[in-house]
Amino acid sequence: MKLPLGFKYAAAHAGIRKVEKDDLALIVPDSPARAAAVFTRNVVQAAPVKLAKQNLKISKGKVAGVLINAGNANCATRTGERVALASCKALAKTLKTRPEYIVPASTGVIGVELDAKLLTAPLPQLVADLSAEKFQTVAEAIMTTDTRPKTASEEVQFSDGLVRVAGMTKGSGMIHPNMATTLGFVMTDAVADPEDLTDILRFATERSFNSLTVDGDMSTNDTVLLLASGASKVKPSGKERKVLQEVVTWVMESLAEQIAADGEGAKKLVIVRTVGFKTTEDARKVARAVANSPLVKTAIAGSDPNWGRILSAAGYSGVSFDPASIDIELQRTVVCKSGLAAPFDEGELKTKLDESEVRIRIVNKNGGKGEARFFTCDLTEGYIQINGSYRT
Amino acid sequence: MKLPLGFKYAAAHAGIRKVEKDDLALIVPDSPARAAAVFTRNVVQAAPVKLAKQNLKISKGKVAGVLINAGNANCATRTGERVALASCKALAKTLKTRPEYIVPASTGVIGVELDAKLLTAPLPQLVADLSAEKFQTVAEAIMTTDTRPKTASEEVQFSDGLVRVAGMTKGSGMIHPNMATTLGFVMTDAVADPEDLTDILRFATERSFNSLTVDGDMSTNDTVLLLASGASKVKPSGKERKVLQEVVTWVMESLAEQIAADGEGAKKLVIVRTVGFKTTEDARKVARAVANSPLVKTAIAGSDPNWGRILSAAGYSGVSFDPASIDIELQRTVVCKSGLAAPFDEGELKTKLDESEVRIRIVNKNGGKGEARFFTCDLTEGYIQINGSYRT
Repeated sequence: MKLPLGFKYAAAHAGIRKVEKDDLALIVPDSPARAAAVFTRNVVQAAPVKLAKQNLKISKGKVAGVLINAGNANCATRTGERVALASCKALAKTLKTRPEYIVPASTGVIGVELDAKLLTAPLPQLVADLSAEKFQTVAEAIMTTDTRPKTASEEVQFSDGLVRVAGMTKGSGMIHPNMATTLGFVMTDAVADPEDLTDILRFATERSFNSLTVDGDMSTNDTVLLLASGASKVKPSGKERKVLQEVVTWVMESLAEQIAADGEGAKKLVIVRTVGFKTTEDARKVARAVANSPLVKTAIAGSDPNWGRILSAAGYSGVSFDPASIDIELQRTVVCKSGLAAPFDEGELKTKLDESEVRIRIVNKNGGKGEARFFTCDLTEGYIQINGSYRT
Repeated sequence: MKLPLGFKYAAAHAGIRKVEKDDLALIVPDSPARAAAVFTRNVVQAAPVKLAKQNLKISKGKVAGVLINAGNANCATRTGERVALASCKALAKTLKTRPEYIVPASTGVIGVELDAKLLTAPLPQLVADLSAEKFQTVAEAIMTTDTRPKTASEEVQFSDGLVRVAGMTKGSGMIHPNMATTLGFVMTDAVADPEDLTDILRFATERSFNSLTVDGDMSTNDTVLLLASGASKVKPSGKERKVLQEVVTWVMESLAEQIAADGEGAKKLVIVRTVGFKTTEDARKVARAVANSPLVKTAIAGSDPNWGRILSAAGYSGVSFDPASIDIELQRTVVCKSGLAAPFDEGELKTKLDESEVRIRIVNKNGGKGEARFFTCDLTEGYIQINGSYRT
């Protein structure tokens, strides 16, 4: 993986979670990076989310350090805001920068007090450990119920030189569209100002984290941060900015796909594609309803080509359409033609549905140009096992 | 169970489902009953739903027979409308009435052709078998993945005499608010016209079937029918109509509770109560989000007092509130006070959460008079097992 220039990483086990696994991590640009961020739309927001928003506002999108902990959401706790503030102050002191230049992010259980010392005591050692090579170490430290770290990178040649984009994310449950799902950190060494980054992040989030659903639940802590170090010294020109936007989108789509594929208990990545609806918003609503349907997702888990559930979910999406103009494909096999059963080899399709990636395509032949794509996963017993006893 | 006067029932195994279990049922008033109905809001609607709507419109709310089959939804099939029409015609002929006086209802798999003969051939024998005693037989015949029949009844003394109300329902998955969830048939022997019945049914549905969620999925076939035989010869007066409305609501609330308690794979009935929100609609939104949250429902399955998930679900309901004004009770134990953890005995509460009925109460101390109640169930491995291989 070719990493963007100008960033260092570190992680350690601070004792926030009981298991002996890194739970505190740093991402530090060599000099303050330019940043944009999106956050959860839940009205219940964790202390670090509120503080991150405030800091980015005061710093006008400058970030000298990102402090991430797993194992405790620092949400709905008496001391939450003090703890988040103390951790930013401590990191700022160690990095010799201003507290407003720090972005805090937390993930884990809600409603359990978090001891500020667990966050602050390891900081001098963590800062001493910072290394450009520890990208993967941080990607592993931020995991909670994830079964594997999730990273992606791309590079692109502009007229003034090479620019790199690399991202990491965590999350496998409590994931729902229309928000900056879970934690995501995307770094680039392009030269960009916070306004450009905001546009890029908004575009890329819509097509990635906001086109993703695991269980329809939204967390109190979700944060996606885009940082530009400028270390490549390459400032994309007008046209190149569009290309950078595409490249960031590829990275974030890959991260979103990885989250869906690693959905709690999931065995299969499911990609729902909708085509021919009146508007993009309509296409998104239909794709989302299908991707969110427990009946569709359990059918996929059972490799059952039960297209009636897909048609039914499309039907309650809130989008008006004529069922007689709908075709449905499962793994590129037409299972429903003009709203009716199409003949297909059930045994053959069941075998195709056993694959680790399942594609659902819903075509409205009498609609418009609205298209969308949603990432989700199958719903298995594993989801229940993971979530029935997560806390205790 | 004291049954309303003026109705007869019958059921038989017609071979629509493979297992040897009744799958065809009749409800027949002694003379045409007055009726009101609510149907699914899914844009994909089964043939019997479309025909039932049309018949009720033509007959101006008169019903001489209800023909119900389980095992096949008669939806998204080439011959669906012909089959539904043929079955109504055949029953009308046998009952010597008009086809528009028949209400058809189907439940089962979508997209599989249904042979009209399976519906029509048994009708002469079924009509011959009609009996006022076979209420329970019909309640059993209409079951699909239900583990038990669901019935409820009430009676009420009016100035002119006794009036009885009895209902039956089926459904344990694919259940979502804001629709006439699943199949429900409520009979009364009161004298009432279709307009009164429509008002009563709308009121009662809102508080029962529309306050119910199992998995957030909406079926293509949902139908709730309220029939008044008039056989008691008691016509409720103005004030008594309100009482009749209450009594119908009790019966339907009981049916809705029974559906939630028998949710696919469910081990526990969950009742979510919200109090003190700005409006009833706000209170309903919060209750619905909590009742629909897979994370809340898996926590309940695991007897985990994870109130953070409840607060988080309330937070993404789309209702604006101050988290600091929220109290949450689980089994009448305060677990969250003013948005923060309240001290409670975890072992004791876990034991209480093992009970078959779990009560969640969410109080907004700084809101208004909006209150609501939602019925749901816990989410267990059983749901996945049932739905991973329902069709094949």
